[in-house]
Amino acid sequence: MQDASARTRLLDAAARLFYVDGVNVGVEALCREAGVSKKSMYELFRSKEELLAASLARSVPGYLAALLPPDADAMPGQNRVLEVFERLENVVADPNFRGCPYVSTAIELKAPEHPARAIARQFHDTLTAFFCTAAADAGVKNPEELARQLTLVHDGITARAVVHGHPTPGLGLATAGALLAQALNG
Amino acid sequence: MQDASARTRLLDAAARLFYVDGVNVGVEALCREAGVSKKSMYELFRSKEELLAASLARSVPGYLAALLPPDADAMPGQNRVLEVFERLENVVADPNFRGCPYVSTAIELKAPEHPARAIARQFHDTLTAFFCTAAADAGVKNPEELARQLTLVHDGITARAVVHGHPTPGLGLATAGALLAQALNG
Repeated sequence: MQDASARTRLLDAAARLFYVDGVNVGVEALCREAGVSKKSMYELFRSKEELLAASLARSVPGYLAALLPPDADAMPGQNRVLEVFERLENVVADPNFRGCPYVSTAIELKAPEHPARAIARQFHDTLTAFFCTAAADAGVKNPEELARQLTLVHDGITARAVVHGHPTPGLGLATAGALLAQALNG
Repeated sequence: MQDASARTRLLDAAARLFYVDGVNVGVEALCREAGVSKKSMYELFRSKEELLAASLARSVPGYLAALLPPDADAMPGQNRVLEVFERLENVVADPNFRGCPYVSTAIELKAPEHPARAIARQFHDTLTAFFCTAAADAGVKNPEELARQLTLVHDGITARAVVHGHPTPGLGLATAGALLAQALNG
């Protein structure tokens, strides 16, 4: 870890601790985990809130890479939608899965103006935009509406995995498939 | 409040503080809010965890009463399903809404064996059973599967309202309607 900058170590520690222990992790624990003094932390981030938002923002591309097919442009729109829910099944089956990091953080943060909430909204909007393009390519009449429905299925599947402590195989795929079929043929 | 027992006051305080501030509220704050000594609290509840589970369990009937139509038996199965999502729109539109209390608590609790998690599972199972009966009455071929999908929509709508800080009118009803139509005619 000696070659990682204090900033990187703080972002790594924040990503780990906030996800595993929740948003109430203290500054002391974060600095200890990162091997960084509190003084250095406050030189790099104005507040714990800003560190949380920055660590979440940094993790979005990785979470999306796990969820979205890498060769999306080459796939028909329908397959592109369904593949997300096949991949989501692997994401929630990870024994370390504790919920969608962005939705969970929004739920844990009780302060509506917390800077990390904006990351959750951006994550939602990015996922919805992916579904919207795929739905439009599939020939769906109202791709925006289907896209919001599919994002809802993502959130529901991640919540369910947490509530039950295990995934429900096939549920996300079946739900997304039904919504897609209804949007195309209903 | 003088006529309420210490147990009731603790359950009321727990319901308020855990919902508004999160599961990390301390025993001191709970006892202060309830006007009960820590000694009395530990005579009534073995732990903060048990108090949280008891306060959640007590609130389930009230949450379900807001969500489920009171005259369900007199309604056709389809209307019974859709009415839940009309009612859910009012639930999430409350300015004090901070997420489904049971799903949120399961997400906030990082310990899988926490007693309050069982309440979230029971809530899910009760809601799914309601949908299952309604779906069977509506003539759906696989009512269990549709019921799990509809519970997923409930969770997704509550999560979305938290992430965006406001409800998305019509989304739950449209999603549930599409799933119902696909289950009946697809």
